[in-house]
Amino acid sequence: MMNSQKRISDFDIRIGSMKRGKLNKITDVKGVKVGHYTVDNENNKTGITFINPTSNIFENKLIAASHVINGFGKTTGLIQVDELGQLESPIVLTNTLSVGLVQNFLVNYTIDECEKKNIEVKTFNPVVAECNDGFLNNIRNICFEYNDFIKAVSDAKTDFLEGDIGSGKGMSCHGLKGGIGSASRMFKIDEHNYTLGVLVLSNHASLKDLTINGVGAGKKIIEKIECMEQEDKGSIIVIFATDLPTTSRQLKRISKRAIIGINRLGSYMGNGSGEIVIGFSTAVNLNSEKSIQEIKIINESKIDPAFRAIAEATEEAILNSMITASKVVGYRGNIRYSLRDFIHLFT
Amino acid sequence: MMNSQKRISDFDIRIGSMKRGKLNKITDVKGVKVGHYTVDNENNKTGITFINPTSNIFENKLIAASHVINGFGKTTGLIQVDELGQLESPIVLTNTLSVGLVQNFLVNYTIDECEKKNIEVKTFNPVVAECNDGFLNNIRNICFEYNDFIKAVSDAKTDFLEGDIGSGKGMSCHGLKGGIGSASRMFKIDEHNYTLGVLVLSNHASLKDLTINGVGAGKKIIEKIECMEQEDKGSIIVIFATDLPTTSRQLKRISKRAIIGINRLGSYMGNGSGEIVIGFSTAVNLNSEKSIQEIKIINESKIDPAFRAIAEATEEAILNSMITASKVVGYRGNIRYSLRDFIHLFT
Amino acid sequence: MMNSQKRISDFDIRIGSMKRGKLNKITDVKGVKVGHYTVDNENNKTGITFINPTSNIFENKLIAASHVINGFGKTTGLIQVDELGQLESPIVLTNTLSVGLVQNFLVNYTIDECEKKNIEVKTFNPVVAECNDGFLNNIRNICFEYNDFIKAVSDAKTDFLEGDIGSGKGMSCHGLKGGIGSASRMFKIDEHNYTLGVLVLSNHASLKDLTINGVGAGKKIIEKIECMEQEDKGSIIVIFATDLPTTSRQLKRISKRAIIGINRLGSYMGNGSGEIVIGFSTAVNLNSEKSIQEIKIINESKIDPAFRAIAEATEEAILNSMITASKVVGYRGNIRYSLRDFIHLFT
Amino acid sequence: MMNSQKRISDFDIRIGSMKRGKLNKITDVKGVKVGHYTVDNENNKTGITFINPTSNIFENKLIAASHVINGFGKTTGLIQVDELGQLESPIVLTNTLSVGLVQNFLVNYTIDECEKKNIEVKTFNPVVAECNDGFLNNIRNICFEYNDFIKAVSDAKTDFLEGDIGSGKGMSCHGLKGGIGSASRMFKIDEHNYTLGVLVLSNHASLKDLTINGVGAGKKIIEKIECMEQEDKGSIIVIFATDLPTTSRQLKRISKRAIIGINRLGSYMGNGSGEIVIGFSTAVNLNSEKSIQEIKIINESKIDPAFRAIAEATEEAILNSMITASKVVGYRGNIRYSLRDFIHLFT
Repeated sequence: MMNSQKRISDFDIRIGSMKRGKLNKITDVKGVKVGHYTVDNENNKTGITFINPTSNIFENKLIAASHVINGFGKTTGLIQVDELGQLESPIVLTNTLSVGLVQNFLVNYTIDECEKKNIEVKTFNPVVAECNDGFLNNIRNICFEYNDFIKAVSDAKTDFLEGDIGSGKGMSCHGLKGGIGSASRMFKIDEHNYTLGVLVLSNHASLKDLTINGVGAGKKIIEKIECMEQEDKGSIIVIFATDLPTTSRQLKRISKRAIIGINRLGSYMGNGSGEIVIGFSTAVNLNSEKSIQEIKIINESKIDPAFRAIAEATEEAILNSMITASKVVGYRGNIRYSLRDFIHLFT
Repeated sequence: MMNSQKRISDFDIRIGSMKRGKLNKITDVKGVKVGHYTVDNENNKTGITFINPTSNIFENKLIAASHVINGFGKTTGLIQVDELGQLESPIVLTNTLSVGLVQNFLVNYTIDECEKKNIEVKTFNPVVAECNDGFLNNIRNICFEYNDFIKAVSDAKTDFLEGDIGSGKGMSCHGLKGGIGSASRMFKIDEHNYTLGVLVLSNHASLKDLTINGVGAGKKIIEKIECMEQEDKGSIIVIFATDLPTTSRQLKRISKRAIIGINRLGSYMGNGSGEIVIGFSTAVNLNSEKSIQEIKIINESKIDPAFRAIAEATEEAILNSMITASKVVGYRGNIRYSLRDFIHLFT
Repeated sequence: MMNSQKRISDFDIRIGSMKRGKLNKITDVKGVKVGHYTVDNENNKTGITFINPTSNIFENKLIAASHVINGFGKTTGLIQVDELGQLESPIVLTNTLSVGLVQNFLVNYTIDECEKKNIEVKTFNPVVAECNDGFLNNIRNICFEYNDFIKAVSDAKTDFLEGDIGSGKGMSCHGLKGGIGSASRMFKIDEHNYTLGVLVLSNHASLKDLTINGVGAGKKIIEKIECMEQEDKGSIIVIFATDLPTTSRQLKRISKRAIIGINRLGSYMGNGSGEIVIGFSTAVNLNSEKSIQEIKIINESKIDPAFRAIAEATEEAILNSMITASKVVGYRGNIRYSLRDFIHLFT
Repeated sequence: MMNSQKRISDFDIRIGSMKRGKLNKITDVKGVKVGHYTVDNENNKTGITFINPTSNIFENKLIAASHVINGFGKTTGLIQVDELGQLESPIVLTNTLSVGLVQNFLVNYTIDECEKKNIEVKTFNPVVAECNDGFLNNIRNICFEYNDFIKAVSDAKTDFLEGDIGSGKGMSCHGLKGGIGSASRMFKIDEHNYTLGVLVLSNHASLKDLTINGVGAGKKIIEKIECMEQEDKGSIIVIFATDLPTTSRQLKRISKRAIIGINRLGSYMGNGSGEIVIGFSTAVNLNSEKSIQEIKIINESKIDPAFRAIAEATEEAILNSMITASKVVGYRGNIRYSLRDFIHLFT
């Protein structure tokens, strides 16, 4: 049974034209799991989100790529992901000032897991991405211990929750409550079905610019409430998975189209908004010891459906992050309202 | 007196919220001029568009940058523009297979112009960009002689024509007629007015995806006509000018936001679509012989209006390229209709 | 029978430790051929060099990559090579101001060749690289007609000449005569032999910095002659071929190591020196119509021999370009001496 | 009084031709200070090196740039450094698996320092670079507490120690002991003196390739000892400072020439070697609140001395890192000998 969160499609808002996956989440790509640890007290609204691309990712490295749309961000690990076209780490999301702390947890977790299998970790490229939840969260506080990180790991599942949960707890999106959102798209190539799934940590853009399927939703909401406007800054992280066989160059080309979904909702990619995309393909096994490896890749001339898929899935994932998030009153009494409370205005 | 072409704003379609420049063209940035040479016969619909960033650009090099959105394109000169952050050439637009020919004209033109001033050209970095007009134009034909290039140069002015003219003669955009379009935006920083102007050569995207201010315009048009659908390929070139003082790094950041305007109209940036942005600032004079030069730059935290300006101006410039273009019947009887003939459907 | 040019190894100068290919040229990679057309008159010392990566390259596209070390250069075609990781064109070398002219020849040649096979060229990404031979050549003169280009094409063979020939006719290297040079290296992976070959067009660096296997050769030569010193500018183009199966990302990693050979000879990669590397692998056939293609790639952890191979071959190719070139007296009486006349000083 | 470590120049080995700074260290650039914290026990040979670019760097942001030569590395912070062309953090060096831990210390240290000045840190881009000291150090152990980090901070001075100290304690270079090394170069432009200083954390390349001023030093050493050979992997971090006024683009161009010094000593930049350069200019004050800032930059045509300076200083800094380091017996009894013990063989 699926969890009971109402998502943007439940409000008859249809993004794009492609077919959605079963859960309409990144976890529609087989092997991907997502878990959360959430901190929710008077001063702190923050958390950790753990994305496991495949079991034993350290041993089962995947072809991967990243794309920096706007580099006002502190994501770690992308230099090596891009050099080698490989991912060997879970992808972990948290707040800006906790990246080092969480990265350290991730390193120790990987060492521990490998020790259980008698693998000695000699080097490891951890991937930790972040957005700044400082509006609702006293970001200068240290909120996590190693055991909290393990809780996020243990929580990993396919039908994970979205909204104000995990690393999304304190995030703001288009001046409303943002956080974790997900969506997926399917496409056929030669009668074979492929899936591309997106997970976003949304914390970007301003309310006045919010546009849903061409409707100036933000402006309608502004008439109703006095909210503290958000400048177009704060970052969005887009993680995507696909079972389409690709090279890292092709994944990078796909990752560049995530921006389409972000832009359609109204973002102008402001100076202060770190926008980063990280993607991986589960289709190719790089574990062969062979000197010459055989891999499968998509014919470049057939790649367009994957471009459209990430655009649509990113747009819907952002809306899901907003519609599933509840109103949050946080640090210093700062408030972010939920899109849910205004969705009737324009549907 | 302004020329009498009706533009998208004449149909009560308002793109974005910023103030437009006087002509609402790239030439609102002082010093910029644009000229065309057009070939219009049974088999050939093509041309040359000459963009002069400033008088004597070879001597008056400008700070410049480029951004390759999708590199399925043959634009020349960008390696050096990006290395040195400088532009020393007019920017010339033509069809894909004429880039070498036109580049050769541009080199010879520059040598000739410099000789008149007793400057011996020892090296020169010509910038020629292109789109593929092969649907309406027999692109394998050689259509230009040096004298035709000079006609485009001589035609350069501020109130230039848009649409199916110059390099835009044979271009297609969103399955309709595309070509040359322009728009500009103004913004104030500390009581000082700045202008950013865009010129596009539009030849990209599919009709079914055409979306104007959120309205599915393309789908409405498809109901009315049988047109030969265009895949999301074919390229768009975006040239922008600004009088805002910037470094080349800042110009590159601005150039990355042109994509917003392209995406809002519905493009998915398909595999076969070369999308390239080239921009320059007229604010800084690099001609000083001094070893240590003093330049002015925008404070990074104030750059957001320029980001919004290029997004808005690019979106409007594309629409202007379509609305000013007439229906063209070209090579092999291929037809591209004009947006003008359908604009009543959704305004 | 091999041609009789004496090369650097004939002077007992051994670069690196790896095994050389049969011809010790780029053409040791099966399928690669090189031809020249040379202009040699009082004012003009220049030419065209035509590198054919494989027969019918337009149909038999190859995996390729490029690397811009220093972008003070006008090479065309690299945007698309890098976006798609593919090469579909011969690589042609000429002087800086003839790039457009030669590119136009290359386009027309490709259209003609394809017409013979009933292939209609709709788009084509020509690759033309250049160095500036303006010291020995009146570079402002137009020296080539289409037929001259065809002569370079027709001249293509495996045992091509090096030195002051073709595009190398007017080039200068380390203050002496430079031009075309080549070398190759072989390496074994799992008992299988692979070859990597390099061709350079050398036109860079200063005499005082010339260092051969650690010996300050340039300084010794300066004591003997008064030559017009060359600043560290002027460019070097490095073309490499390999039969190692790679992705374009891996080829790009290999291409970044060409710099090692350039640096070991003493270059400081000055501001005005355009240094560009273009490489391709002949191992993978991209022509399959299949949507999902199977390709072979080298295991990343086994790639080091290819890194060492390009470093060694580039260094030796530059020396070969110098030692095979004869003294040239050119435009305005400018002189470049041959390394051959001084090699006895330090061997 | 300068500290008494003997450096490479004390052995009559002269790298390049440019004038050295007073200390011949990165700290010859005014404002730069360096401190160490060292862990030295049976299983752990590791540490922290703290590079302070200027006092109160968080408030006094500097123009900066980075260059990834080979991205097999885990350095953090470079995405934002490159996007904004700014550095707002001290640069801290440590071992590969401690990057997160040390980054967390750096964040907390910055929060604490700013609190003292009543500045509320809302976001912060920490820069932590690393090499892998796993040969001499049990890298899986956690070796640092916050107080140890503060010791490195407190140790910061101009005449800092080199060799097997701080983050350099456990590093290996060319199969011998490596670690921290530094050097500087001075150059005149228009009668004004400028300084460029380099600090390296050296942990790369193989002994057989070690070449000092053209002499095959590594091969001579191999004849004398049996050492455990080092593959060309393990990383080198190059930090440079200059008081030359530059844009971030110009700094990036300078940073690309660090590779020259690395290559001249024999490195082939192997697959597993993360090679990263980070540089900053102390010449420009970015703190102005003004919307339009006036900055000074070097005329591009005068930049060559800075290119040569970083090449020479990097080469000498690596040699200094080796010659100042003592023999170390570390984890599992692994041994790295000191270059000092063999320098007589080839001087």
